[in-house]
Parts: sequence; C-alpha cells; structure tokens
Amino acid sequence: MSKPFRIGIAGLGTVGAGVVSILQDNAALIATRAGRPIEIVSVSARNRQKKRGVDLKKYQWLEKPENIADTDIDAVVELIGGADGAAKKLVEKALDKRRHVVTANKALLAKHGLALAQRAEKSNVSLNYEASVAGGIPIIKALREGFGANKIQAVYGILNGTCNYILTEMRETGRSFSDVLKDAQAKGYAEADPTFDVDGIDSAHKLCILTSLAFGVKPDVKALKATGIRSISAIDIDLAKDLGYKIKLLGIAKNYNGKIMQVVEPCLVPAQSGLGAVEGVFNAVYVQGDSVGSQLLTGRGAGAGPTASSVVADIIDLARGQKIPVFGIPAAKLKDAQNLDRGSIESRYYMRLNVLDVPGVIAEVGAILRDHNVSVESLVQRGRDIKKPVSVVIITHDAKHRDMIESCRLIHKLKFTREPPCLIRIEEL
Amino acid sequence: MSKPFRIGIAGLGTVGAGVVSILQDNAALIATRAGRPIEIVSVSARNRQKKRGVDLKKYQWLEKPENIADTDIDAVVELIGGADGAAKKLVEKALDKRRHVVTANKALLAKHGLALAQRAEKSNVSLNYEASVAGGIPIIKALREGFGANKIQAVYGILNGTCNYILTEMRETGRSFSDVLKDAQAKGYAEADPTFDVDGIDSAHKLCILTSLAFGVKPDVKALKATGIRSISAIDIDLAKDLGYKIKLLGIAKNYNGKIMQVVEPCLVPAQSGLGAVEGVFNAVYVQGDSVGSQLLTGRGAGAGPTASSVVADIIDLARGQKIPVFGIPAAKLKDAQNLDRGSIESRYYMRLNVLDVPGVIAEVGAILRDHNVSVESLVQRGRDIKKPVSVVIITHDAKHRDMIESCRLIHKLKFTREPPCLIRIEEL
Repeated sequence: MSKPFRIGIAGLGTVGAGVVSILQDNAALIATRAGRPIEIVSVSARNRQKKRGVDLKKYQWLEKPENIADTDIDAVVELIGGADGAAKKLVEKALDKRRHVVTANKALLAKHGLALAQRAEKSNVSLNYEASVAGGIPIIKALREGFGANKIQAVYGILNGTCNYILTEMRETGRSFSDVLKDAQAKGYAEADPTFDVDGIDSAHKLCILTSLAFGVKPDVKALKATGIRSISAIDIDLAKDLGYKIKLLGIAKNYNGKIMQVVEPCLVPAQSGLGAVEGVFNAVYVQGDSVGSQLLTGRGAGAGPTASSVVADIIDLARGQKIPVFGIPAAKLKDAQNLDRGSIESRYYMRLNVLDVPGVIAEVGAILRDHNVSVESLVQRGRDIKKPVSVVIITHDAKHRDMIESCRLIHKLKFTREPPCLIRIEEL
Repeated sequence: MSKPFRIGIAGLGTVGAGVVSILQDNAALIATRAGRPIEIVSVSARNRQKKRGVDLKKYQWLEKPENIADTDIDAVVELIGGADGAAKKLVEKALDKRRHVVTANKALLAKHGLALAQRAEKSNVSLNYEASVAGGIPIIKALREGFGANKIQAVYGILNGTCNYILTEMRETGRSFSDVLKDAQAKGYAEADPTFDVDGIDSAHKLCILTSLAFGVKPDVKALKATGIRSISAIDIDLAKDLGYKIKLLGIAKNYNGKIMQVVEPCLVPAQSGLGAVEGVFNAVYVQGDSVGSQLLTGRGAGAGPTASSVVADIIDLARGQKIPVFGIPAAKLKDAQNLDRGSIESRYYMRLNVLDVPGVIAEVGAILRDHNVSVESLVQRGRDIKKPVSVVIITHDAKHRDMIESCRLIHKLKFTREPPCLIRIEEL
C-alpha cells in the first residue's frame, strides 16, 4: 500500500471530533477505498481540556491553528468556521504552503471563494468543501462532477436545517416562531444567536456556492438577497396547509437566458411535492440540467455525522489523487454574474391582509390589484367579526414581482389595513 | 489547454446519439470543465443509414464495434448493451489495449464485473459505468466517492422506470397489468419483449452493482432473487391505496452483521414516504451509512438525456485524470458475499386471500397463522357475497419470511381457497 495521506485538523467541535471519530473507527475500510491510510498528524482547537469523546493523544497538539500548516502534512482540514479570522488565515497559509485544504466553511467560500480558488491554483493544490453545503448530501460533487455534461438551468432547495425544523414544528404544533425557536435553542437545533440561520444568511452563503458551481460565475454573496423566516406567523402556516401548501425557506438560483436570479426567501411549496416532503432538520437540493432533467438529492443537512462524512469523503478524494477546479472550472474562466432584476419575473403569490371587517375592503383592494395587473385566483375572508380585524387571504395568478410589492405598499396605506400585508411567493417547482 | 481527450463510441441508439449530441452541443462548456476538449474520433453501429438526428460525418465509421478499440483513442464508450457478445468483446479488447472504458451496460457489469475489474487493473485503466444504474442519478459516484467515509448499512430503491411507470399507471387508472403494459409498449416505455424489465431482471443487475459498491463484495447476480410485477393485480394496488400504501418494485440490499440480504420484489411502501412519492419513469435510491444517515437520490432513471448525461460525466472524469477502482476498492479486496437466508428476517406483510364467503374461513386461516407465530394486525373482508369468492385482506405484525411462505402454502390448500394467496412484504423504510 502507498504511503499514508497525512492531515492536520484545526477545530475540534462536534464536526471536528466527528471527523477524528470516523477516521479512527473506519480506518481500515477508508484505507482500502483511498488506496492508502489516512493519518492524522496534528490537531488544534481552542480548549485542549474539553472532553470530545475521541482519543487525541497520538496527535501533535498545536495551540495556534495556523501552525497546523507548518506540520508535515498533505492536507489541512479547517473546521474552525467564520468567514474571516483564524479560519481564513489558516486556509490561506495552507494553500500558499502547497497543502490541500478541506473545509466545511460556507461563509469563507461565499465571501472569499474566488481569491482562495486563485490561490489554490497558483499552488497547484485542491480546495474541497463538500461539507459546506447541505451536510452529508454530496451536492458539491454532483455539481462539479456528476452533472458535468449539463448546462444547468436551476439549482434550488432547502439549505438550512434549523429553519426547516422550526417551520416543521410550527406547522405540526401550531406554535409561534419565537416559541419554537426557544425550544430549538434548548434542544441544540438552533444557536444562542440564531441570526445566521433564521435570517437566511447561512442559506445565502450556501446558495452562493451552488450558484457559482452551477453557472460558472464568481461567488458573490453581496448580490444575493436573503429574507429569513422571522416574519412567518402561525396563521400563514395554517392557511398554507388548508390550501395544500407548506412554507419552506428556499434558496433558489435560476438561469434566465444567461441572467441569474438568486434569492433566499420563504415560499409556499405544494405539500405533495418533493420539497414539501422534506421535514425537520433534513435538507434537499434540486438540480435541473439540460440533459439530466430534474434531480433531487435529500438527506441530513447538518449534525456531526453527516457533515463529517462529507469532510472525510473530500479527504479520500485527495488521497486518491483527484483534482477538480475549486468551482468546477479554472478560476480565470469564472464570469461575473449578470444578475437579473426580479421585478419582471412572474409567479403566483399568497397575500394575507389584516383588515377591519367593514364594507368596501374588497373593492379597494381589488382596484389596487387590477391597477397593477394582478389577477386574483381566489380571495377568502377568514372568520367574520364586524368592524374588528380579520384575515383576508388572496391567491394570485402569475403576477410580476414588482407589481406585487407595489400593491402591498398601497394596500398597507388603506385606512382599514391593520398591518403590512404578508406576501409569500408560491414556488410550483 | 491540454490536448484533446479522444474517444470512440460503439452503439448509436438513443443513448449513443444522446452522447454525441451533448458532446457537440455543450462542447465548449465541457472542455472548460474537463480542462481539455473531448474529441469523438470513431463510431460504430449496426446501421450506418439510420437517421439519428446528429451529424456523424466527421467521425471515422467502423463496421465492427470491436475495431473501435484499434483506433487512436483514450477511451472506448460502449453503448451496445447485452451481457455477452459484441459488448463484452469490445470492452475486453479495449481494456487489454489500455483504453479506458465507459459503459451503460448493467448486465455486463453484473455478470462479468469482477473479471473486467481485474482486467482494468492489470492494464491500469478505468472502467466507469455511472449510466448503468438509475440513469442520470449519480449513484455510482455517490457510492464510490461521496459516501466513502461510511460503512454502508443498506442501499435500496426503485431501479426500473418501466415497472414504476406501469405500477403508477395501474394505480391511477385502475387498469390491469397486461392492459397497461400494452400501452407502455405502444408509447415506447416498455420493450417489445418486456421480460427484462417486468420480471425484475434489470433491477437485479442494477442492485447487484450497488451491492458490490456498498459492501465491497464481488458482484454475483446469481445470488440475487428477483420477483417481478406480473402477478400484481389491480385489486392489490387498490387495497394498498386504501391502507395508505403504494406498491413499488424495490431492489433492496441490507447488511445484517456482515451477512447480506439482496432481493428484488414488489413491496408496499407508505404512500407518504420518500419512495412512495417517486412516480412514473422516475428512479430513486436510498443509501444508509453509519455517519451520513439516510440519503435519497431521485431523478429520471432512463431516457436518452439522463443516461447520456451520466455517460458524458464519466468521460469528463477520465479527461480530468480521475481514477477510482472499478468497485470502489481494488478487485483483489472484494469479498465473496455472505448471503443471508431471509427465512428468519421479520417484516410486516400484506396478504390477500380469495376465498368463498362461508362461515369458518377466519377460524381456519387464523389457526394456520397462529401455528406459525404470525400475529394479525388487521383482517378485513372486502364485500359480502354469500358462498361466492370474496377478498380477505390481512395485515400482519412483524413475522418471519419462512412462516409467511408456509402459511400461504397451507392456506392455499384449504377447501374454500380459490387461488394462491397474494403475499407482499411491507417495507416501512
């Protein structure tokens, strides 16, 4: 058997400990698959004393993570996290020192992906990041390799397990967002500071990576508009259910004749659809290609096991000598994305109004919608409570995004409107 | 850019023409991804005159497919089909002449996979076959690479689009198997001789390949028991629907403490499950790994586009210089599978009896089941028609396979039984 493939691991949280655990437990199997043993040489983490459930005694311990890159290894495994700081410092140093890099760091790739890809090419080493998107689902490999024959038309899915868990719980229990969030935090499914997850930032980072891979464009997270799930209320989830839909936070990237529409936002998806069936902490990614058609990959999107599985798969690829350009094509060939103004894109919409139950509401709302070319498929008032606020739910036919936004703005100004209309796009998939 | 990667294609049916079409239409994109152009040098097919919708004038035409291996190429693309004959001859010659091979030929891999893997290793070339299982779904790559960190516990799914189409049509229209089959043949979804598909042989070939990859064992299609869908009647599909299930032809390989259970058979799966949602010509494969948990890949399982997409992905991998052992590990390390006798494996079962509506039926059937440790969850007689044949549907609790078979045999012998009981396993997934 060939000589060992030597690695150093920086960051020993649940994923880092998971990687060590897999490499120890499945060592023989992995060596057979990789054609050589994988040897952990050095490790680094903030707290040496912390109990991690794995034996680290045989490995060189380094206080400073960037020093991992100085040890005698073939690849650095970066599991520190964060777009800047120690993670970036380590990855840059590792690439410059001609070490391959494996990382689970979506923020780093989304923000600095292009520069890192150039750096990796300059040193003729690989930068693998399967674990950065959708945990155990091999979506990076599918886009960089498996669907390589295709012009990709769209890539979209449920990319954040925390949000999907919260939305699933809200639907199943009828509880409010804040209530379920607290519960998710207590169970460890949501961070103490949930901003990254619930405001769609984590999904945006992941979508940014998928967009780059799918369409051969430079990752540019700033071009990506993200709306999270904070404003989703129990009543919307309940109304959606009655209409045969579920509310899911989707990351969507579509190619419209060379222009790219990228967005992270909650959508109504048919309850019976492939994405509608994805519940709890599961993730799912659809890919549409010109030859392959529509493909769906579903699985656990987070957690130590699935994420570590992807990290180790990346390491095995390196040990086998595989070498794929970071974003599937040489960095110099990545184009600036032509971002589409979504104003003119048409979809069906769900709109919930909170209005006083007085005569004339429908006439005034109807006039605004008519004036903006929005055609109504159904309109239902929920409950009857004269002169008190009630919910009115409108489902539109295909309407332009900008017309919907403007209609909402004007409806909000009407004297009987009690709160801003809740507008959620319907994604038929 | 590096020098072109040169290929010869043998077999120009829908998939072969699809491969040529993708390589022509997406040539620039594919060259960027592969790091070099893919150049078709030579082609061969039975009929030179046939209209294929692609321009073949630039390529060297060879009457004998095996002569493709003599042309100045890096890889042979075998799309002739069939476990023996021209396909086998060509692949063997190509490997011996140190050409990489890409094939969509499941029968060839299932029957001669081990010998071909040894041959490829001896010549230090690759044998890629993504298109052989589940069309456009990158399941071979997922098992050889993406889930490489995992001890695989199970791999199973819907592997034959023709059967899934027929079962879906039967459920949706209430028509009989033979009726829907004729229709599928007219539409080109089923072959004139449907044996390979409807008797489960095609699924068995595919499962055999997945089993080898998942568990590191020699492919051995003879060890695999296949039952097709000919005996599925409209009434079973209808009864299953009422119970919240769908009938799907599944290929299932599970690891029970080192022993492998492999089977292709129709099963009841929950209508709401991931596999239950896979309809028509779609395929789906579940993989369960010790780290990654449960992963589902779904997509078009057949047709020119999806299959050709996988063939071209294999070609790109080769052009990029990727090299993975044929079955994920060196051929010499593949073990003989320890096949499990499924007699002692427990499942819930659906059993439909066709019996005369006379007193005492339940008592006698109940006694047989009791004597074989089969506990009944529910028993429902469909309709009432004194002294005429009626259907009785029994759902069992977990029961051993051998006990169910023996119970069926004895129930069939009872004087009021009109036909052999229909026994279908319930796969809870």
